[in-house]
Amino acid sequence: MSEFSHISSNGEANMVDVTGKAVTTREALAEAFVYMNEEAISLIQRGDHHKGDIFAAARIAGIQGAKKTADLIPLCHPLMLTKVAVDLELQAAEGRVRIETRCKLDGKTGVEMEALTAASVASLTLFDMCKAVDPGMRIEGLRVLKKTGGKTGLWSA
Amino acid sequence: MSEFSHISSNGEANMVDVTGKAVTTREALAEAFVYMNEEAISLIQRGDHHKGDIFAAARIAGIQGAKKTADLIPLCHPLMLTKVAVDLELQAAEGRVRIETRCKLDGKTGVEMEALTAASVASLTLFDMCKAVDPGMRIEGLRVLKKTGGKTGLWSA
Amino acid sequence: MSEFSHISSNGEANMVDVTGKAVTTREALAEAFVYMNEEAISLIQRGDHHKGDIFAAARIAGIQGAKKTADLIPLCHPLMLTKVAVDLELQAAEGRVRIETRCKLDGKTGVEMEALTAASVASLTLFDMCKAVDPGMRIEGLRVLKKTGGKTGLWSA
Amino acid sequence: MSEFSHISSNGEANMVDVTGKAVTTREALAEAFVYMNEEAISLIQRGDHHKGDIFAAARIAGIQGAKKTADLIPLCHPLMLTKVAVDLELQAAEGRVRIETRCKLDGKTGVEMEALTAASVASLTLFDMCKAVDPGMRIEGLRVLKKTGGKTGLWSA
Amino acid sequence: MSEFSHISSNGEANMVDVTGKAVTTREALAEAFVYMNEEAISLIQRGDHHKGDIFAAARIAGIQGAKKTADLIPLCHPLMLTKVAVDLELQAAEGRVRIETRCKLDGKTGVEMEALTAASVASLTLFDMCKAVDPGMRIEGLRVLKKTGGKTGLWSA
Amino acid sequence: MSEFSHISSNGEANMVDVTGKAVTTREALAEAFVYMNEEAISLIQRGDHHKGDIFAAARIAGIQGAKKTADLIPLCHPLMLTKVAVDLELQAAEGRVRIETRCKLDGKTGVEMEALTAASVASLTLFDMCKAVDPGMRIEGLRVLKKTGGKTGLWSA
Repeated sequence: MSEFSHISSNGEANMVDVTGKAVTTREALAEAFVYMNEEAISLIQRGDHHKGDIFAAARIAGIQGAKKTADLIPLCHPLMLTKVAVDLELQAAEGRVRIETRCKLDGKTGVEMEALTAASVASLTLFDMCKAVDPGMRIEGLRVLKKTGGKTGLWSA
Repeated sequence: MSEFSHISSNGEANMVDVTGKAVTTREALAEAFVYMNEEAISLIQRGDHHKGDIFAAARIAGIQGAKKTADLIPLCHPLMLTKVAVDLELQAAEGRVRIETRCKLDGKTGVEMEALTAASVASLTLFDMCKAVDPGMRIEGLRVLKKTGGKTGLWSA
Repeated sequence: MSEFSHISSNGEANMVDVTGKAVTTREALAEAFVYMNEEAISLIQRGDHHKGDIFAAARIAGIQGAKKTADLIPLCHPLMLTKVAVDLELQAAEGRVRIETRCKLDGKTGVEMEALTAASVASLTLFDMCKAVDPGMRIEGLRVLKKTGGKTGLWSA
Repeated sequence: MSEFSHISSNGEANMVDVTGKAVTTREALAEAFVYMNEEAISLIQRGDHHKGDIFAAARIAGIQGAKKTADLIPLCHPLMLTKVAVDLELQAAEGRVRIETRCKLDGKTGVEMEALTAASVASLTLFDMCKAVDPGMRIEGLRVLKKTGGKTGLWSA
Repeated sequence: MSEFSHISSNGEANMVDVTGKAVTTREALAEAFVYMNEEAISLIQRGDHHKGDIFAAARIAGIQGAKKTADLIPLCHPLMLTKVAVDLELQAAEGRVRIETRCKLDGKTGVEMEALTAASVASLTLFDMCKAVDPGMRIEGLRVLKKTGGKTGLWSA
Repeated sequence: MSEFSHISSNGEANMVDVTGKAVTTREALAEAFVYMNEEAISLIQRGDHHKGDIFAAARIAGIQGAKKTADLIPLCHPLMLTKVAVDLELQAAEGRVRIETRCKLDGKTGVEMEALTAASVASLTLFDMCKAVDPGMRIEGLRVLKKTGGKTGLWSA
């Protein structure tokens, strides 16, 4: 592949025409990391209920974010996601929270942007809830881990 | 500061009450980087019009994203942004595009989440447009650079 | 059935995976009642045009609300509704307006949440338009009346 | 007061002009009840984490719902909420969950529709998560409990 | 005035910074016309209730559209509209419906885009409801009639 | 055809039931014109980058607008567009910009409202960016050019 699919020959942004494409089951996994200071890490660690609501808010926001992908990213097609999962894991030794997302659908185009958007919105929500304690957090390593389905089949990082 | 402002004493997610806070001019800067392979870098580099529409789409999506912050992040207040700027710079030697965003308002609460959301959506849009050439891109270093205004005044990374 | 489908074994909110489910015609009916004082009832009763625009606004808001269900309810799947109907009936003797909604689609998951959301938004719109006359209104009896389609087939209240 | 504020003299739906009104601190409380069968009640009761994520999802959806009020209810003005709170309480003996919401802002118009919308969306989210166990749930008693601020001052149910 | 306010000196789309601008009462009027064939005109004319719901739907959609302006037009600021009015008049002799809209707010930037968006969405809604009878309708003459407030004061077409 | 499909026999606004309709490939073309004064025309003409970002913003807003059709027009069904194209052409001699849009999907209902909405939002975005130079612009001739697919097959203006 040697050209951007979303830019036409005269340089204009362009929604790819997927009208003729086959409906197949497609799935994508993405991940991101939120790095924070020790105080924030230990506040998340302390007490299940704290982590519960912080992680629940990020998880729910990530799921909702996946459904808004076509509204956020101009050239994305509207899609009928059949599954969105957002998992958060505190990796205290590394000073970070790891977020992994998974999206699925039976459709004509892949769902990696949906998985990335879910991870991005979950990360931002976590940032929002912890920023009073550590305004210097960083969101790192947002990328696609794996995608399956469609003409290209399996791709993994 | 030693507690998460968005989690109440019994562990529940909680929108901070800003009713009594003063209206001041607030501003926030954020940045992010999108790393991509040489082929993607050189396609962006080649020809102004190509870069034009790719960067224009990311810039516009970032501006629109900033305005959707309260819709994406559950505990953010609705805000009346008075300015959103999104700048993209191709840093070919580093194999990346740098995105810098700036948000302003006269209001009762800070705009760092808006600046981060703008940077995040601009990054995702860039990813979407280049993913046919490099599906292995990574979004890195999303963070607040500086914020001013409000009771805490200047904070910088 | 003995477990919540939307809560995973470790207690986390969870969007049900409907990827493998069959596409069938599904339909759901819901109802709600808005109770109001005599003055509000008689103002609605007086003159067709009054009732016309009050009921038209509630009907249109209810239809629009049905289409926003996946945006409002975190674990709902995005759906392609093929029909939404919202009917309002003034039941003056009972001091109330009855709202009945019906949603349909050919899809992989039921539409009862869409019917309930339509009834809910229509009720709230009616409340909004009558609240200057009766701020003490109550919305009661919002429930599913019947649903058909899918693996479970017919269910009725 | 003897006429609907939202219907003009010729019977047309009408957004009230609040341009000239004073900015005051306004607050509204609303409540709703979700009635469910014993199996659903005891599943919510069993284990903190279960209740945690079910209640967290409803709380977050309710907060997000309050921010969407002007998008859902046609004649509502866009508002800058400064506080939204959604509290859920399991009242097992009564076979129900009680939802209480509170909205605040410094603005030109009241926030009772925002409090009602928050309660409504939180109720619907609870319904969605429990419907596999009890599809016959009912949402009852959605009403305003109290509102303060503005020209009319305190109103309570 | 000799340059586009929304394009920076290096040609990039740019949200105008209104942070320092004064809050004044601003108002804008816009109009549009929907031309249709005789059959559509006479169906609208026949019976009040028909016209009622067709015009009510267009009016409500137009009001809702005004509130979505900043979501639709990339460089528009989010605004707190204090009044939106949408009026429709059947001008049978001219074979058209005239739509006039009016928006108001106390704010830092004008509301002509909101008035235009209201007129545009009301026109499209009318088109949608009549297109089965006349798919060849045209929407013409969408423009600003008058605006007041702000530094430039009164402007009229 | 002799009755409005969206108005029921008792005069109420009504979403057409498309549950039973066949899935076919459907396409629609629409156009609109934005008339502006010489100064605005020559500013658009001058320099590729200027036109680039102005046209890019309108093109992207138009694409995004098409995806919001069911949110804007009350009785439109939610659709899964497979292609949206928005083309702008400066017709300096005629003192106008011509906008042509094209929408496609495999679905149960036509996409002419989506094409019209794309053209409408692109026009409004162009208006917004040029209004500082010419507040007297007019949007004219918004109409469907052609539609194909479905039971009625080809229709052209």
